[in-house]
Amino acid sequence: MKFRDERSRSSTLLPVNHSTEQTIPSDRTVRLLDTTLRDGEQAPGVSLSPDEKVEIARALERAGVAVIEAGSACTGAGERQAISRVTDLDLDARVTSFCRGLEHDIDLALDCDVDGVHIVVPASDRHVEEKVGTSREDNLAATAELVEYATDHDLWVEVIGEDGSRADLDYLEELMATALDAGADRACFADTVGHTGPERTAEAVSRLAELGPVSAHTHDDLGLGVTNAIAAVASGADLVHCTVNGLGERAGNVALEEVAIALSHVYDVETLELEELYDLAQIVSRATGVQLPPNKAVIGENAFTHESGIHTDGTLKDDKMYEPYAPETVGRERRLALGKHTGRAGVKATLDEHDVEATGDEIAEIATRVTELGDRGRRVTDADLLAIAEDVTGDDRERVVELLDLNATSGGSVPTASIRLEVDGEERVASGTGSGPVDAAVSAVREALGSMADAELESYHVDAVTGGTDAVVTVEVTMARNDRSVTVARSEADITRASVEAMVDALDRLLATDREPLAPADD
Amino acid sequence: MKFRDERSRSSTLLPVNHSTEQTIPSDRTVRLLDTTLRDGEQAPGVSLSPDEKVEIARALERAGVAVIEAGSACTGAGERQAISRVTDLDLDARVTSFCRGLEHDIDLALDCDVDGVHIVVPASDRHVEEKVGTSREDNLAATAELVEYATDHDLWVEVIGEDGSRADLDYLEELMATALDAGADRACFADTVGHTGPERTAEAVSRLAELGPVSAHTHDDLGLGVTNAIAAVASGADLVHCTVNGLGERAGNVALEEVAIALSHVYDVETLELEELYDLAQIVSRATGVQLPPNKAVIGENAFTHESGIHTDGTLKDDKMYEPYAPETVGRERRLALGKHTGRAGVKATLDEHDVEATGDEIAEIATRVTELGDRGRRVTDADLLAIAEDVTGDDRERVVELLDLNATSGGSVPTASIRLEVDGEERVASGTGSGPVDAAVSAVREALGSMADAELESYHVDAVTGGTDAVVTVEVTMARNDRSVTVARSEADITRASVEAMVDALDRLLATDREPLAPADD
Repeated sequence: MKFRDERSRSSTLLPVNHSTEQTIPSDRTVRLLDTTLRDGEQAPGVSLSPDEKVEIARALERAGVAVIEAGSACTGAGERQAISRVTDLDLDARVTSFCRGLEHDIDLALDCDVDGVHIVVPASDRHVEEKVGTSREDNLAATAELVEYATDHDLWVEVIGEDGSRADLDYLEELMATALDAGADRACFADTVGHTGPERTAEAVSRLAELGPVSAHTHDDLGLGVTNAIAAVASGADLVHCTVNGLGERAGNVALEEVAIALSHVYDVETLELEELYDLAQIVSRATGVQLPPNKAVIGENAFTHESGIHTDGTLKDDKMYEPYAPETVGRERRLALGKHTGRAGVKATLDEHDVEATGDEIAEIATRVTELGDRGRRVTDADLLAIAEDVTGDDRERVVELLDLNATSGGSVPTASIRLEVDGEERVASGTGSGPVDAAVSAVREALGSMADAELESYHVDAVTGGTDAVVTVEVTMARNDRSVTVARSEADITRASVEAMVDALDRLLATDREPLAPADD
Repeated sequence: MKFRDERSRSSTLLPVNHSTEQTIPSDRTVRLLDTTLRDGEQAPGVSLSPDEKVEIARALERAGVAVIEAGSACTGAGERQAISRVTDLDLDARVTSFCRGLEHDIDLALDCDVDGVHIVVPASDRHVEEKVGTSREDNLAATAELVEYATDHDLWVEVIGEDGSRADLDYLEELMATALDAGADRACFADTVGHTGPERTAEAVSRLAELGPVSAHTHDDLGLGVTNAIAAVASGADLVHCTVNGLGERAGNVALEEVAIALSHVYDVETLELEELYDLAQIVSRATGVQLPPNKAVIGENAFTHESGIHTDGTLKDDKMYEPYAPETVGRERRLALGKHTGRAGVKATLDEHDVEATGDEIAEIATRVTELGDRGRRVTDADLLAIAEDVTGDDRERVVELLDLNATSGGSVPTASIRLEVDGEERVASGTGSGPVDAAVSAVREALGSMADAELESYHVDAVTGGTDAVVTVEVTMARNDRSVTVARSEADITRASVEAMVDALDRLLATDREPLAPADD
């Protein structure tokens, strides 16, 4: 009984008297700097080619990012080529390079024709003394010299006080005053290791804001990336460093899309073209190979998906019932999912989409069976729902396409597959080759179906496999034909079988629904 | 030039005067409620079996969670069975059920022998009028009745004002006062749709805290889940609703591990046994099938991984250089990764691990070539590093095991594979069956190697595949033998070939390193 007497205990609490005014007035001008191409790329396992950097930079420009940190010129020749490709785009955004506290780094950045540089100098004693091996005094002098060198070369200059959140704030203030006096355009408060909370962020940024323009660079090691970015803006920062999808060292930087939507929705402060955010997220995910987590604000697969009965029902009554803002705001669409928590409203809405009619009692029975399927841990797709509906309504349907036999060889130089299908009561056998066993089998299926195979494979997704080589693999296939699409999922240990079964089932659904006259295989 | 005159512009800014005191004193008692088994499970596509709920509940108990919301008893018989299994565990944590505002739901919760209930009643006009179809007045009366019914049955009662963040705060206060007067143990401020910011959270929670004990239930649709949870605690909330890995409806609930580490690290407020957090995250990830994102605080694969030269070098000098807290705090270990941003220090540290010696010049050359490999977008594994090192140092090594031929059939009822290997200069041919083409091929490799195949497959991972059936698949294999482990990654369109090549390469490395007397295959 951990909560015994909680009412009396709590009455002794003295809640801090929070100001309840908005701490960021809506007329504040706040801009976002994107460092996906620099700090984001420093995420382990991530590497972007020059072409990918260019594609991402263009998407950042469409979104209206103010500064694009395109890389770190000192990293190597490949990196400099990529930065130069971005500066060549002649974007509205300022294009910059990260520089360590070395003149040589600034020279390399100049070679890439950047608009500006971020000069990182140590701010905490740990970084001043242990990492760089200098003294507080010498660090001040070196910082002033570097800033002068950069401004002499007509660069816009931001000085980042590395590990600023663990620095002596008096020294941080002195360091940044020195940088601004030497001509730096702005000072950046950096929570380099994601160490601090909103109070210290607010204190440091308020003090630096007295000296000149301040940026904030926050990391998410404590889950406080957004908290600290907001605290920094409330305390006077007007440029926030972010990365798309929150990529970056360790737990990553604060996510661009989260800072943008939070500032817009809560404070009416607009920083970006929000409707570009999802497109941007997908471009970065593809280029970096880092999948979008399903439960992530703005960009997650489930961010605008409703499964539970209460939420689906509420959303069907009123879009706003369970959404803080419309999915279209960030370039997305609402989705209803079926599963363990599905209720009647969700079942009816999905059946309507597929033009399937059912009585109230039938819908209740279908919903119960969808819930049971979900209860067994199964992902419930449209095809599962339609199969249940046919069973419940007694509206039997003859299969148009059925898988009788499948054999695929792989591992050698030409993956090959053979297939035996029953197509509208007639057996068809065909073979195909491809880049792997699944690809070969898909080509055999297309061959067997001939002109009926005009459905498009809209998406083919295999969940990541972790565990042993005998792990069950989940494959989800979406096929489309004549403006209809059907999604089927299969989970089996044999990836080839799972993929082909899902594809054949999806094709069968599409062909059965359309009931077009059957054409013979063109073999 | 978007930043023209920014220094003069900024000087007109009047930063809000933030208090810089810690808003949460370290002597505050804060407890965490975990709703992974209820709100977490409502995430689309997630469904937990009773066994899985029991396993997660035990892990939550080990972590020291105060309240476990085990489910929603009204969902169905399967759900009630699962909740009963959790209440049967006789945990120290309070075990509860979610209830809609219906007596019947409370009866169903009682059937599961729960310690308490969360009664959800509408708080915003949208939910009072549109969703529930009642009036403010009738809602007050119904709430009082429900609370009395539940307390009459000796239940601990928390009343959740659904959509509280969009409610008229005067009405929310009246509603919660009614609930507490009727005997509820606590009121919960719910940002049900993840709509609000820290100022409104602070205002609402401060007002409710005057009435009695307050909980906070926050969602992450704006990325403000943690921000609002911290603001709520600072304003008097002493119980925070969370989910493991931030699962939940849409963008998810606030993550348990982030609230726990932020309160501990920034405010010295301890809520959980932090070293249990990673184990807990993995249990929930396995049970739900939702992968852990690499860039996520506390639980992400990369949260304590360093790749870039500056960070690796700094970390090797001083653990704390680029980490806010030691990975062991949350039950993890530090990891160095190789890639585009690797420097000499990281290369040397990894070579040392593998007992490979190299001169300073050689290390510089190896680092350059690792960077080049990373530059081409390749994941760089230990095996890649060792191959480069051999080439650079001229320390040629004969392969012990080499793949000559591979053939796997799949899709039919018995996936089968044959393999031809060169093992220490001698050809060996073997076959095997398995649950899929890769599994069959692995069993053929083991057969061919005989007693040399005593290496263990520590992990087998396939990246999620998105795109077409001809997409390139990345397989990463880690094999271990006699306390050494080697990781190899291969990217090919044929998953069978990629998997077997990676496995054979890893085996070759392990066998070559150990240079044990070769035994003949036991066939």
